[in-house]
Amino acid sequence: MTAEQVARAAREASNMLQTISSAQKSAVLRRIKQVLSERRAEIVEANRLDKEAAKKEVDAGNLSSSLFKRLDIEGSGGEKYTTLLQGVDDVDRIADPIGQVTMARKLDDNLSLYRVVCPVGVCLVIFEARPEVVVNIACLAIKSGNAAILKGGKEATRTNQALAAAIQYAIATTETQEGQTKFPEKAVQVVSTRDEINGLLEMDRYVDIVIPRGSNSLVNFIKNNTRIPVLGHADGICSTYLDESADAAKAVHTVVDAKTSYPAACNSTETLLVHGAVVDSVFIEVARALLKAGVRLHADERSLAAIESAGLAQDPAVASLVTRATDADFGHEYTDLDLAVRVVDSLDQAIDHINALGSKHTDAIITEDRKNAEWFMRRVDAAGVYWNASTRFADGFRYGFGTEIGVSTNKTHARGPAGLEGLTIYKYYMFGAGQGSTDYGVGEGKRGFLHEDIPLDDGVRNKFVL
Amino acid sequence: MTAEQVARAAREASNMLQTISSAQKSAVLRRIKQVLSERRAEIVEANRLDKEAAKKEVDAGNLSSSLFKRLDIEGSGGEKYTTLLQGVDDVDRIADPIGQVTMARKLDDNLSLYRVVCPVGVCLVIFEARPEVVVNIACLAIKSGNAAILKGGKEATRTNQALAAAIQYAIATTETQEGQTKFPEKAVQVVSTRDEINGLLEMDRYVDIVIPRGSNSLVNFIKNNTRIPVLGHADGICSTYLDESADAAKAVHTVVDAKTSYPAACNSTETLLVHGAVVDSVFIEVARALLKAGVRLHADERSLAAIESAGLAQDPAVASLVTRATDADFGHEYTDLDLAVRVVDSLDQAIDHINALGSKHTDAIITEDRKNAEWFMRRVDAAGVYWNASTRFADGFRYGFGTEIGVSTNKTHARGPAGLEGLTIYKYYMFGAGQGSTDYGVGEGKRGFLHEDIPLDDGVRNKFVL
Repeated sequence: MTAEQVARAAREASNMLQTISSAQKSAVLRRIKQVLSERRAEIVEANRLDKEAAKKEVDAGNLSSSLFKRLDIEGSGGEKYTTLLQGVDDVDRIADPIGQVTMARKLDDNLSLYRVVCPVGVCLVIFEARPEVVVNIACLAIKSGNAAILKGGKEATRTNQALAAAIQYAIATTETQEGQTKFPEKAVQVVSTRDEINGLLEMDRYVDIVIPRGSNSLVNFIKNNTRIPVLGHADGICSTYLDESADAAKAVHTVVDAKTSYPAACNSTETLLVHGAVVDSVFIEVARALLKAGVRLHADERSLAAIESAGLAQDPAVASLVTRATDADFGHEYTDLDLAVRVVDSLDQAIDHINALGSKHTDAIITEDRKNAEWFMRRVDAAGVYWNASTRFADGFRYGFGTEIGVSTNKTHARGPAGLEGLTIYKYYMFGAGQGSTDYGVGEGKRGFLHEDIPLDDGVRNKFVL
Repeated sequence: MTAEQVARAAREASNMLQTISSAQKSAVLRRIKQVLSERRAEIVEANRLDKEAAKKEVDAGNLSSSLFKRLDIEGSGGEKYTTLLQGVDDVDRIADPIGQVTMARKLDDNLSLYRVVCPVGVCLVIFEARPEVVVNIACLAIKSGNAAILKGGKEATRTNQALAAAIQYAIATTETQEGQTKFPEKAVQVVSTRDEINGLLEMDRYVDIVIPRGSNSLVNFIKNNTRIPVLGHADGICSTYLDESADAAKAVHTVVDAKTSYPAACNSTETLLVHGAVVDSVFIEVARALLKAGVRLHADERSLAAIESAGLAQDPAVASLVTRATDADFGHEYTDLDLAVRVVDSLDQAIDHINALGSKHTDAIITEDRKNAEWFMRRVDAAGVYWNASTRFADGFRYGFGTEIGVSTNKTHARGPAGLEGLTIYKYYMFGAGQGSTDYGVGEGKRGFLHEDIPLDDGVRNKFVL
């Protein structure tokens, strides 16, 4: 199938998905779990073949061992596959947002307006390696009534196809009750060749949103090559700022967590900003803990001087961890145990640094001063602004969303960790009795609008839930 | 100033706007109204010079007379200027959305998460002719805490500059109280040369959203030439479908309104779909009324036959209004007294036609059958789906939003007529006590998340309103 045929089939499936009930979606999810259990051996065998081929590439130096590791679908004791099956249940349990009324208004007698949550439509998800993404995204798309086109990495082609075949078989064999819309099989499609990606990115006529899951370079490539809205983030350049009144213990704990708990994550802190008043006190304690954890500090002149005068770098092994920062260190995502350090003279200077060089992802202030904290939270232009907490909390599961489609650094639609809401939008239903717009206005025989809000009690809120 | 300087100045203003209170915004709006009143003669004189120059262009055949008409800021009795001043008050009265909490959750003791409404940031508004847009958009931007860059048509340059100067003077001379952020003068900037538009469309680093107000070709140009999200619509191809059980009186009234009340509007109906069962009954009554109103019908074979067999086109003057439709008539925005007519054999065929050829703006079904109406509303992929009402109701004022930024046919962010909400997004505030992400999880010494919703009573909802 060409990219256009895939996209058009997804659009047609999307149209059918508009009249699928919550119960049907739930039945499909349960059936998917069942088929994935039944076909486990088959899927694991496809995965073994993918891994076998990938191993050769690793040995030849063409593939990284971390990517190889992510390819595995079973885990050493099969626990990854169990988690994958469990994930289907987890998605099934999330509340279904579709059909909910979020605004209701009586415009006039017999003329009412309802804003109703609906699926965005067709989602294109582009990801690398991890084949379990196929299952996760397919389930999220089904739950939110979206059609999904999944484009995985070529290393996982056999696994992805086996998973997609299982999902499509589950959809096809879920029973349809009398009067129900048949769940469309093309609700989930998997494409694998590299060529199709460019073609799909041009399908803005059929595709409503692109969700990239992968490296910065993948996301940047997508952002630069499509007119379709992209939900995601290219860079995660998070900063933590130690304010004048930062508590040393809180500073040490949050910064060590933010830098070392998972350095490759987008919500890891990459830049430490330090108020000049605490560079010889709080900062030294933080630096000592970071160096102990093996973090390489790229320090500006003033923080370097403080490290030296505190005698932190006397041990040669530690000294090798400390280097002088260059301009390129700021606004850079290391995704490793590296941290850029800069001393600032005021809260506003820290904010200006973040707004100029950050990536609008997540930034934290460590302070005992509520006024400064709130000023920082208002003025920093980022999806997450934290007071005395690690930037690593920026995550849909930690936020309690039950799932995460991605973390968005956009300023429109969805911002920050996006749950299922990121895959929904709304439309306006109007119920009339034959009115025309010219019936309303000023003058003889014209009517005025009432514009009365209809209270969103449960009956109204769920009026259009299927 | 270069496009980059303008965009960067707007970004800096946007940063400052984050700590401006509602009262300050209100004071600026009141001052704007005052200055616009005081400078009325000056602004009207600038407008006279613009009109004088434009008149020569009209006489030379380089400018349309409708564009010339839209250039006027006074109206014959000064009523347009009065409306403009009134509009400032109207915006002032809209509820301020900024700082409202829309979600609050206790993640743990001393670890809380708040989703707080904030401005999108920097808006670029590109419009043609109508200089009153400068005032309207400037006020909406101020009210929603956004920085605005306004790019008007060259015909209105003097008027736009005079209005912008008045607004900036009003901002500069609004008193700032002790402890308040000074309202940034660059919150509203007007640029006028044609060259700047391309430069500004490249400023995705500084500009968060583009709002085009003008012709299809303007909007299409913008959509094709920027990576910045665009809030608006290029085409308004709205359809009305006469179902099998359509009531004739409702059909006549809504269709005549939808086609004739303002044919140039984007929410006018361009296509009439007719169920085969009513082509010789309800449709004939509708056609008769439309022809009487001077509407040119571009009819497909079956509707044409019905018109002929009903004898509607016996009068040669009326006959000239009826032509055979070509494929190009469907999915075409006439913006005039033209209507494409097509007969379909089922509700689903009507829906398929709309989903394939419509522009996702607003579509209506005329029927007495609630089941068919709801099926249509769910299945039609459009911002507005109406039952027994004219498509012309798709408008922010008619919806009761108090204002309209634009009508969006996007599937993300804002859909349909967008009020002030279209200029807002949210960010997550997290309040901690020094926690790290590794404090949570499974195992000894690890804590679990509480994820308890904090009820949104007025205190919580307004916690961060300034």
